[in-house]
Amino acid sequence: MLNGEMFIGSRAVKGGHGEIRGFNPESGERLDPAFGGATMGDLDEACRLAWEAFDPYRNAAPETRARFLEQIAQNILDIGDELVERVIAESGLPRARVEGERGRTVGQLRLFAQVVRDGRYLDLRIDPALPDRKPMPRVDLRLRKIPLGPVAVFGASNFPLAFSVAGGDAASALAAGCPVVAKAHSAHPGTSELVGRAIRNAVSACGLPEGVFSLLFDSGRDVGQGLVADPRIKAVGFTGSRGGGTALMRIAQNRPEPIPVYAEMSSINPVILFRGALAERAPAIAQSFVSSLMMGAGQFCTSPGLILALDGEGLDAFTRAAGEALQETGAGTMLTPGIHQAFCQGVERLAGHDQVETIARGRAGHNYQGQAALFSTSCDAFAADESLREEIFGSSSLIVRCPDEPALAAVVESLEGQLTASLHIAKGDHEDVRALLPVLERKVGRILVNGFGTGVEVSHAMVHGGPFPATSDGRSTSVGTLAIDRFLRAVSYQDMPQDLLPEALRDDNPLGLTRLLDGKDE
Amino acid sequence: MLNGEMFIGSRAVKGGHGEIRGFNPESGERLDPAFGGATMGDLDEACRLAWEAFDPYRNAAPETRARFLEQIAQNILDIGDELVERVIAESGLPRARVEGERGRTVGQLRLFAQVVRDGRYLDLRIDPALPDRKPMPRVDLRLRKIPLGPVAVFGASNFPLAFSVAGGDAASALAAGCPVVAKAHSAHPGTSELVGRAIRNAVSACGLPEGVFSLLFDSGRDVGQGLVADPRIKAVGFTGSRGGGTALMRIAQNRPEPIPVYAEMSSINPVILFRGALAERAPAIAQSFVSSLMMGAGQFCTSPGLILALDGEGLDAFTRAAGEALQETGAGTMLTPGIHQAFCQGVERLAGHDQVETIARGRAGHNYQGQAALFSTSCDAFAADESLREEIFGSSSLIVRCPDEPALAAVVESLEGQLTASLHIAKGDHEDVRALLPVLERKVGRILVNGFGTGVEVSHAMVHGGPFPATSDGRSTSVGTLAIDRFLRAVSYQDMPQDLLPEALRDDNPLGLTRLLDGKDE
Repeated sequence: MLNGEMFIGSRAVKGGHGEIRGFNPESGERLDPAFGGATMGDLDEACRLAWEAFDPYRNAAPETRARFLEQIAQNILDIGDELVERVIAESGLPRARVEGERGRTVGQLRLFAQVVRDGRYLDLRIDPALPDRKPMPRVDLRLRKIPLGPVAVFGASNFPLAFSVAGGDAASALAAGCPVVAKAHSAHPGTSELVGRAIRNAVSACGLPEGVFSLLFDSGRDVGQGLVADPRIKAVGFTGSRGGGTALMRIAQNRPEPIPVYAEMSSINPVILFRGALAERAPAIAQSFVSSLMMGAGQFCTSPGLILALDGEGLDAFTRAAGEALQETGAGTMLTPGIHQAFCQGVERLAGHDQVETIARGRAGHNYQGQAALFSTSCDAFAADESLREEIFGSSSLIVRCPDEPALAAVVESLEGQLTASLHIAKGDHEDVRALLPVLERKVGRILVNGFGTGVEVSHAMVHGGPFPATSDGRSTSVGTLAIDRFLRAVSYQDMPQDLLPEALRDDNPLGLTRLLDGKDE
Repeated sequence: MLNGEMFIGSRAVKGGHGEIRGFNPESGERLDPAFGGATMGDLDEACRLAWEAFDPYRNAAPETRARFLEQIAQNILDIGDELVERVIAESGLPRARVEGERGRTVGQLRLFAQVVRDGRYLDLRIDPALPDRKPMPRVDLRLRKIPLGPVAVFGASNFPLAFSVAGGDAASALAAGCPVVAKAHSAHPGTSELVGRAIRNAVSACGLPEGVFSLLFDSGRDVGQGLVADPRIKAVGFTGSRGGGTALMRIAQNRPEPIPVYAEMSSINPVILFRGALAERAPAIAQSFVSSLMMGAGQFCTSPGLILALDGEGLDAFTRAAGEALQETGAGTMLTPGIHQAFCQGVERLAGHDQVETIARGRAGHNYQGQAALFSTSCDAFAADESLREEIFGSSSLIVRCPDEPALAAVVESLEGQLTASLHIAKGDHEDVRALLPVLERKVGRILVNGFGTGVEVSHAMVHGGPFPATSDGRSTSVGTLAIDRFLRAVSYQDMPQDLLPEALRDDNPLGLTRLLDGKDE
């Protein structure tokens, strides 16, 4: 099934602009086949088709859109082990993780099918006319949300399935009724082709217009940048580096018509160890911390990169136990040589910092394997040097020793926006936690108790987001059903005859959807 | 009560930076007292107080916040006729309009009090733990929306009450739990002081922290720009010109932490006259069109600036009747000399355009009164010259004669984003309307049938928004209860003990709010 092809609507195309190849970071081998990058003509064609598909796709019956999402899920499963093997080869991720990620990918497509059927996301509201109201009669007003338009989706390197071509951004955009033009991540072109074909085939199986989905490879940056600049693209989903995300934000803002960019970028995910928890179970917390830090070779957006605690015996015990556990960890293969290199540079920077102590390193590895690292510094040093707050993507974490609660709170207050904060607490810590919660709520998207941020549930109440620079737009989430809200806008219909109203807003409610009537449940 | 004061928290202050005076555009008189502009020190102090107030204010009981909004409404009413007189003097608006606008202002504050009590805006979601789920147990996840932080609110010149110091942006931000730092519009400083004092007094009467509200005057642009740049400000509400709005967008985007700007800017509000409607009642439509165009001297965001119809007898009859009605209209006093001057320049530009015919002018007026104008042009000329699409703020409208339906649809497709589109239709027009609706939905925030956009209901199903440049962020609305969503972001709590959870998310639901349990109504 792997032909080195991308998809411009229904058409499978070999790109004519430069070459992209998969690379196995475990073996160091370049992978066949070669993939060609899209030309600017390909980009134009994909956007044209997406634009043409927008009105028919968004006006298709909800059941059609729901089945389409389910068909994508089924088609991905039907690829079978070829897909799993290819992801493993292109990412160096272990089989269990890849199979789990496939399950999450399929699960979130099916969950969004339910969201489409349920229809709450439409935020339907009806304020009936009040012809006898004084001093002025009230008109009939009805509101629904409609999709923004075609969405550019950038595949993420660290989730080749769950946050790439058919990942969370694509699933939520397609659920909202937005055609998707996906820009494949160059680190997993084969995975992208396989998944792209699964979507392309679902489009035709469901009788949808071909422009609902296109997949482009980019041998440089022109296609990705051109996609964000194209006037037919109305929103952007991106997961990646802070530099990459802010570059896309700038392009989007400088368009004649600025558009929203949902970029999930950078987070060090503070872990706060409270006094009682440390006294009660420092070694156990250290064990689970190291497990979390090592997951996926630390290549999770929610990897615990920062530990905050009061200096003292409890923190010493934690540091000792974490160091011992970390020393035993084997090096994990990283996704790409570039990510590995950036990790090594980040770790070297901390190791060479005169205010930072190296607590432990994991076992050394071969090739592109990341050797885990745990560091410690003082509260003052952390406050004095902003570079200590930068994300090091991989299994590296920094302990910051705080002299007292106010100093710890000041460190939290000084942090930029984060995806998660993890609190390890015991019964006696609740008062201290309560004092810190308002600060944390202002800083992060998800606050966890006695756990770690790695492992992101795809459900209704999940928030995978947070204030800048965790994301470019901290108002929403990229994981979970609330993600559909990103791709919607509100439209109101005034005094419109029943037969011209969208079905969802007609008096007889033929779709049986939840609606708000005069501000109350109908 | 009028002392020439602004409010920095609870403190009434005479600004020390430059002078601002009200101006009566009807009489041409400068008004007492003189108001002083805020210094950068005043700005800093207002932001500091707002920041300090944020956590206590957002964590105040919903009932406290609701009563606070109601108290503001009552305090505004209690000012009595002094407020109405001052608005009339500073704006040239007629008494009936000002009294109506006061009613709307008070009504929307009370409506938002209901929204706060109702709590649906919190989007509460609970996904309970599933400890026995295979292959992985599910954690307990609970989601709520929290306010973004202190909001900068810019008063609008054309709604000195309903979209100024205690207007829609302030009401929705305060309802969301955001402190407000208001920048008074220099055209109505006295109105701003009176309303600002009403809010300040409500803050203290409700025992809220003083920083919940500040009001600043700006003798230039430094205070407004500095407000958007201040790191403690987390969102901006603005209604005004395209130039002003886009300038604030740029400042907000170039901050170290970019923030959302909700700017309502520019709209020409196409009116589409369908064939059957013209055949049936062209003169009646013309009458109501002229009434809408003359409302508030055309100084509404939703004023009908563009008429689209098929060329022919029906349009001729409409044009004739509209021209005759317009000739009889008296000139309306405009809000400021600057607005009057811009209106005159816009009208002169159209009158001097070689492809534009002047159909009629209203009666000439004195001083700063706007002489209404109706123009006509061809579809081709409209397509060829982008300047014909620019908003002329005031009672000016342009008829575009289209040769056939596709040409009309092409004109609609070529428009930038709009707040409203008004469709005048008869029974036989439904098929033509149906064909155009998808295009209109992509272009506008509100689609009206057999009416005009002037007159904006404040209710649950209202959308006063639209794609750029109607607004900077077309995802939401500035009028109606949905406006509260602009000032919120989602936060998720994982495995948090009951006593640490926000009340709204506890198992026993002590506030009795609507919540989603596993994606269904609780």
